[in-house]
Amino acid sequence: MLSTALFTDLYELTMAQAYIEAGKSGRAVFSLFVRKIPHNRNFLVSCGLGPLMEALENFKFTKEDLEYLKSLQIFKGWFLDYLESYSFSSDIYAVPEGRIVFQKEPLLQVEGPLPEVQLLETLIINLIHYNTLLASKSARCFLASGGRTLIDFGLRRAHGLDAGLYGARASYITGFAGTSNLMAGKRYSIPVFGTMAHSFVMVFEEEEEAFRAFVKSFPDRATLLIDTYDTLEGAKKAVKLMREGIKVVGVRIDSGDVETLSREVRNIFDREGFGNVKIVVSGGVDELDIAQWLSRGAPIDIFGVGTKILTSADSPYLDIAYKLVEYEGRPKLKLSPGKETFPYKRQIMRNYEGGFMSFDEVVPYREGGLVELVCKKGNLLKTLPSLKEIRDIFMEELLKLPPELKSLERKVEYRVILS
Amino acid sequence: MLSTALFTDLYELTMAQAYIEAGKSGRAVFSLFVRKIPHNRNFLVSCGLGPLMEALENFKFTKEDLEYLKSLQIFKGWFLDYLESYSFSSDIYAVPEGRIVFQKEPLLQVEGPLPEVQLLETLIINLIHYNTLLASKSARCFLASGGRTLIDFGLRRAHGLDAGLYGARASYITGFAGTSNLMAGKRYSIPVFGTMAHSFVMVFEEEEEAFRAFVKSFPDRATLLIDTYDTLEGAKKAVKLMREGIKVVGVRIDSGDVETLSREVRNIFDREGFGNVKIVVSGGVDELDIAQWLSRGAPIDIFGVGTKILTSADSPYLDIAYKLVEYEGRPKLKLSPGKETFPYKRQIMRNYEGGFMSFDEVVPYREGGLVELVCKKGNLLKTLPSLKEIRDIFMEELLKLPPELKSLERKVEYRVILS
Repeated sequence: MLSTALFTDLYELTMAQAYIEAGKSGRAVFSLFVRKIPHNRNFLVSCGLGPLMEALENFKFTKEDLEYLKSLQIFKGWFLDYLESYSFSSDIYAVPEGRIVFQKEPLLQVEGPLPEVQLLETLIINLIHYNTLLASKSARCFLASGGRTLIDFGLRRAHGLDAGLYGARASYITGFAGTSNLMAGKRYSIPVFGTMAHSFVMVFEEEEEAFRAFVKSFPDRATLLIDTYDTLEGAKKAVKLMREGIKVVGVRIDSGDVETLSREVRNIFDREGFGNVKIVVSGGVDELDIAQWLSRGAPIDIFGVGTKILTSADSPYLDIAYKLVEYEGRPKLKLSPGKETFPYKRQIMRNYEGGFMSFDEVVPYREGGLVELVCKKGNLLKTLPSLKEIRDIFMEELLKLPPELKSLERKVEYRVILS
Repeated sequence: MLSTALFTDLYELTMAQAYIEAGKSGRAVFSLFVRKIPHNRNFLVSCGLGPLMEALENFKFTKEDLEYLKSLQIFKGWFLDYLESYSFSSDIYAVPEGRIVFQKEPLLQVEGPLPEVQLLETLIINLIHYNTLLASKSARCFLASGGRTLIDFGLRRAHGLDAGLYGARASYITGFAGTSNLMAGKRYSIPVFGTMAHSFVMVFEEEEEAFRAFVKSFPDRATLLIDTYDTLEGAKKAVKLMREGIKVVGVRIDSGDVETLSREVRNIFDREGFGNVKIVVSGGVDELDIAQWLSRGAPIDIFGVGTKILTSADSPYLDIAYKLVEYEGRPKLKLSPGKETFPYKRQIMRNYEGGFMSFDEVVPYREGGLVELVCKKGNLLKTLPSLKEIRDIFMEELLKLPPELKSLERKVEYRVILS
């Protein structure tokens, strides 16, 4: 990974210089929290700590970085020396990835020398924001899916390459079976899936010829795209192949009235005794489509979801902030209208009733709540959980999520008490 | 830059293997186009060719990549050898960055051996999509700004780090004065700007003390954030400093009724003879806010725009596709409902009337239109334009854009004829 130190706003550096010059290098606590959950979400899923810790390891100003900063003629020489010797040595308190969180809860708190922790603001917001945004969106697909298989197809329209990578990771954490994204497969060992594109079918003179060519190359794992010309005709060609003993794992429908088509295609296969062929649906699918189709019994086995999930299209950002809450042991709070903050390092205590979350209290920090000390003086206290472990954490959380909060369309506010 | 070869969907690779096995390695043309412009956009701004060409240079399968692919046990040995020796050697026809484009126009066309150009689909869509999405959004801010200064503050809530980087680049191309993003400053020589955060003010016992400390560290370039406690009191403290001969370049207002506050703050400064102090407004600003405030004469000099622009929040994706349009000289077209394609390599011929664009024709490729051959057999034909040159291209385009298409709220459809 490249140095991440310049993935920051200029003002983080100017403030750091002015802090040091004014003797303000005392111990500070910054808290990252979402002010308000979007109107179309009932909960958030904590995500991004893994990518953040990786980025922090690479938060070092290279010689090139320092030359660039010097060229700006803004900074003093001694401050550039400070940056040259910068290495992250602070404490991080965080909610583990995969846990369900709500408005005003401290997702991540950093405690350390003021200039040092100020410098990290932009990087921390960027990585926790996008990952949490994504996991909170993809979790809704999982809720909608009723046990059907979900695959991330979103890389192509994610906002850049790392958005695609993190999107695959976040969706896997929240129950997706895999991704089409090979980088995510390599980096995070997420299972990879794929079918074929329309271009493949179109290159051959006949659709059937295309199917045969693909199956020949991948005899055990071919999923055929059947909607290039006529979906039902495409399904019949798949049947023709199977009657010859050729294995077809599934078919994909990417356009048209997929609900009706899925029924008709299912009927074609069942009638012919090929009930085990999976039907994959893709093409602008979101969690509301999935919920609607399944509520009407559409026989879809696998959903390929992409654009609308990896851009969190119906709510493409969170109102997230990284705010100073404590300096040299004294509380700090901001009074700007609509942007009030709450002082001191905090813990989230979760209360349960009948096995379900009933309300949270955000209290002055003590051990034993959702927030854990994960990094002490710049060093991880223990290896971060694997993606599979994070996924298990999320699945356990879901069991405790009150049923009304699982609604995809009705806004339900969970109670968070600030004390 | 790291290898970009795995930033792709699995199916690009499976298709490539099956193509080669079926003898389908002939010359193919793929075309990237936006099917339909979002309902809240009247035009798009072509963007992303620079980042794409950089990514293509790094589109090489490393030893690690190949080991990962081998571990999947999907691919045949000879195909992994093919990937090992892969290097991009095709032709790219593209609309230069900064030009205004519309629905169904070929933004980028790749012509080369079918397996080679298929492999690039995901990378090409990802990079051209996000950059074009962003430039099309930030161009609207420029239209709204009426010559006021625009600064990109979006890194923190962009979808990942490279989204922040590309967002700074795209917004600079469309007339922004600069960015807060230091990586964008270093990588693309974009001017960098910054003020201070609320945390800076809060660390000091008194707001005035914070202002003094900042100005002391940056005597020539201090912009003071005045809304931490009480905006008008903050403005008065800035006045107090200036009366002492201390230079204050500007003040920033990040919350509250910024329109009213900007008037009151302007009055305070003007009354005291400090008419040259700039007023910066930030905090969830988008182009509609800017247009509305300026239409009512709000005395705002600089807009810091972030989240809603870098996520293109009101339209976070484009309906973009990369489709096979020609194979071995024969036309290819797809008939899926709503997803029809148009065959052959194409050119965009633009027609003008009275100096304004009047309609476009998408015709079989010939020289002399918007589409240029930029890359021949994998090599750039000439150095790509600098950001400043691209910005000039965009500014010239704006002069020719019909006034009705500049509307931020009224949907106007530009005529594109497909022949």
